[in-house]
Amino acid sequence: MVTLAELANFIGAEIIGDATAQIHRANSFVSAQAGDVTFAADRHYRNRLPQSQATAVIIAPPVVETRVNLLVVKNPKLAFARAVQLLHRQPYKACGISADVSKGEGCILGNDLSIHPRVTLGRDVVIGNRVTLHPGVVIGDRSQIGDDTTLYANVSIYHDCDIGSRVIIHSGTVIGADGFGFVPDEEGRQVKLLQLARILIEDDCEIGANCTIDRGGFDETILRRGVKLDNLIQVGHGTQIGENTVVAALVGFSGGTQIGRNCIIAGQVGTNQHITIGDGALITGQAGVTKDIAAGAIIGGMSQDLRAWRRSQALYSRLPEINERLRQVERITRNLKGK
Amino acid sequence: MVTLAELANFIGAEIIGDATAQIHRANSFVSAQAGDVTFAADRHYRNRLPQSQATAVIIAPPVVETRVNLLVVKNPKLAFARAVQLLHRQPYKACGISADVSKGEGCILGNDLSIHPRVTLGRDVVIGNRVTLHPGVVIGDRSQIGDDTTLYANVSIYHDCDIGSRVIIHSGTVIGADGFGFVPDEEGRQVKLLQLARILIEDDCEIGANCTIDRGGFDETILRRGVKLDNLIQVGHGTQIGENTVVAALVGFSGGTQIGRNCIIAGQVGTNQHITIGDGALITGQAGVTKDIAAGAIIGGMSQDLRAWRRSQALYSRLPEINERLRQVERITRNLKGK
Amino acid sequence: MVTLAELANFIGAEIIGDATAQIHRANSFVSAQAGDVTFAADRHYRNRLPQSQATAVIIAPPVVETRVNLLVVKNPKLAFARAVQLLHRQPYKACGISADVSKGEGCILGNDLSIHPRVTLGRDVVIGNRVTLHPGVVIGDRSQIGDDTTLYANVSIYHDCDIGSRVIIHSGTVIGADGFGFVPDEEGRQVKLLQLARILIEDDCEIGANCTIDRGGFDETILRRGVKLDNLIQVGHGTQIGENTVVAALVGFSGGTQIGRNCIIAGQVGTNQHITIGDGALITGQAGVTKDIAAGAIIGGMSQDLRAWRRSQALYSRLPEINERLRQVERITRNLKGK
Repeated sequence: MVTLAELANFIGAEIIGDATAQIHRANSFVSAQAGDVTFAADRHYRNRLPQSQATAVIIAPPVVETRVNLLVVKNPKLAFARAVQLLHRQPYKACGISADVSKGEGCILGNDLSIHPRVTLGRDVVIGNRVTLHPGVVIGDRSQIGDDTTLYANVSIYHDCDIGSRVIIHSGTVIGADGFGFVPDEEGRQVKLLQLARILIEDDCEIGANCTIDRGGFDETILRRGVKLDNLIQVGHGTQIGENTVVAALVGFSGGTQIGRNCIIAGQVGTNQHITIGDGALITGQAGVTKDIAAGAIIGGMSQDLRAWRRSQALYSRLPEINERLRQVERITRNLKGK
Repeated sequence: MVTLAELANFIGAEIIGDATAQIHRANSFVSAQAGDVTFAADRHYRNRLPQSQATAVIIAPPVVETRVNLLVVKNPKLAFARAVQLLHRQPYKACGISADVSKGEGCILGNDLSIHPRVTLGRDVVIGNRVTLHPGVVIGDRSQIGDDTTLYANVSIYHDCDIGSRVIIHSGTVIGADGFGFVPDEEGRQVKLLQLARILIEDDCEIGANCTIDRGGFDETILRRGVKLDNLIQVGHGTQIGENTVVAALVGFSGGTQIGRNCIIAGQVGTNQHITIGDGALITGQAGVTKDIAAGAIIGGMSQDLRAWRRSQALYSRLPEINERLRQVERITRNLKGK
Repeated sequence: MVTLAELANFIGAEIIGDATAQIHRANSFVSAQAGDVTFAADRHYRNRLPQSQATAVIIAPPVVETRVNLLVVKNPKLAFARAVQLLHRQPYKACGISADVSKGEGCILGNDLSIHPRVTLGRDVVIGNRVTLHPGVVIGDRSQIGDDTTLYANVSIYHDCDIGSRVIIHSGTVIGADGFGFVPDEEGRQVKLLQLARILIEDDCEIGANCTIDRGGFDETILRRGVKLDNLIQVGHGTQIGENTVVAALVGFSGGTQIGRNCIIAGQVGTNQHITIGDGALITGQAGVTKDIAAGAIIGGMSQDLRAWRRSQALYSRLPEINERLRQVERITRNLKGK
């Protein structure tokens, strides 16, 4: 529980209302009750401010006259994310190292750890401080886990992977499996290209559940600082993803894809091999990235500019009408020619 | 083994033939041998009845004159599904609680359990009666599992998830990982929106292998009674799926999607955030659902009516011809103008 | 370490240069240093031969005059894959059977095994010789694993699965979960079609991470010899994949799909139920396979011939222009008619 004054101070807001009001909980606009803080990011919710049961609502300027306490900031959604953390983030408490851990030779373990039962560490694994390893986590030989990192249940890390600090990896994710590289021989049998490179997951990355991040042949597969992946994402061998880029579920990056920083990649996007996507690009859902994408580009469909794609798509759904108009013109010109 | 009379009674069929015939096994139409029951749902298989080696074939009226015993019902496929269950469903046998189970404080366990080795339960977990937990299952703090539910190997359930009765969850599925919510700060770093809501999987749901069902910020993620998910499906934070809806593999539901009851969602479909899909809608494979879908609608492509989409798609493949026709008309009109 | 002569002998190459040169490592063209072997498959890299720091470069004829040692073969990429194996493949070393293995009654174990901690075997499981089972592997009743096969961490094999020799299965993959078969009853509730068939993974297959290979109702699901699957792939119940076929990530094969041998299926492809794809077919990324595909066909989009699809797609992106041209023709014909 915090006072409105403490909360305003934490999120850098101006208070319009009772600074001594008590805030217990963050909540959605619709569900917020007395004791709750929420936010109103757009006109739709701002118009409903008089109906809000919340004790405080975070809004952007301009201030409106209303009954509820207001916290005024430039970016209400960002301020709300911080408010939720202030009110609901559980402080880290080390729960120790379970007796039921299997550990290879040469492992180095940090302090204040939370290693649950049924965790398996290979040889020469290095674990930082305040690391949480949930049950079923398996970490291969010579892999490293940075400080304050959490691996949820049944995460599999192969050998020779470097995971940074404050990283979160959700259940079922696999890091370091062999990249998909084969060459057919004279009889059509697929000969394996061994995958020998390391994997690098930098600080502050978050990786969703059941993702797969593959090992490259000779080039490292890299997630730069602050990359956020949703669930069921394929990161091919030697792919590199730039800082702070966010990727939605079921995206597939082919081997050697180079993605810039601060990009947004929506769900079910796929990329061809060795494509480069520039900084700050936005790729919309189900798009196919078949060629290099410039920095800042907004893309839909098969590598089209989003606006152009929308125009094409609108006309695609009008193709029966277009075909009919064409037929009519053909008829008229036939008649005119006949004259 | 059952007699044809017993089987007919169980599936509610009329017998044409020898009621005392013995049935050992259910089988496909093509493979069925003496002692087997199978079904002929369409004309294609009905025409092949004389060639069938089966002891009995389930068909819909009208009855045909043939050598094999017939079981006549309204819905042969449904009757066959029930016949398979009668002949092949293994009765539940409790195999007890393995000594090799890790259990937090405050857990409450029901009767007649089958808890295999290497299962891990957090604190205050509640397990109903006749529950089967295969090896590698991890269940987080305060989660609940209803009666007669089966979790296959290496399923990960996070904290605060409610799983109903008679639920089946296949291997590798992850329930309760954090929804994908981030807000970029002033420097472009992604600030995490904590995901605090519960997950609710109601009775009689079946969830395939390697699915991911995410936790919402404030709204529960819910699978209503009898929902069936195939494999590798992403259910975003706060998404709700209505009763008896079936979803094929590799579908991605964005956060906040509302899907009605009795819908059919085919493979690799994706939805935009906060879309509503009405009861009984059918979404065909690889469709992109970018706007609300009415109850009963049949959809293909980018949220098009299926028939309209098929017409567009047919003309899309004829675009080279359309372009050529347009060119010809342009030529003619140029000539006519010239006159 | 090998001499160039030994390497040339192993890969069947002609040496142009110093046969006594020592090779320590395989590497990419760009990164190769003294002591490394690399390859130059196309003109782009051949033109950069003078800049290479490698000790030897594998190329196809014709030979060029250059400073670096050359290994001349017909197929440089294939020869390189073999060179990497010669230099970097770790010889198998049995690490024994961990004391921390859970084993049902009637299991038969081969010789020279590497069974890591926390592996669980059901009843009557048969394990061949030199098999590696990483931590968290679960193998169900009556399943069999052939010689020299490796299952990585947290792989789940259900009951009654036959896995061949020299098979590699990456982490998180699930083999043998129930196929997705339901029939709605009179009230719309989905009645389960029990899935009773076996699974067969033949010799020399490699299956990526977090794949799902489902059990069929009555027909076996089969991966023929040498099939290679990337990550996050769905193989539906009763699907059969022919010898040496390679499948990229996030592909979904519906139940009963029949895929020929030596096919290439690119990422995010989906197939309708009971489709047949002929030998040697190539299906490009994100294609939807809605009808049978002939042997050797090259397919894009919705089951179109790739060239036809590319023409359609090019005109799709020009639809605004086509629409404008049509409008102009309409205007002109209106004017001409008016005269």
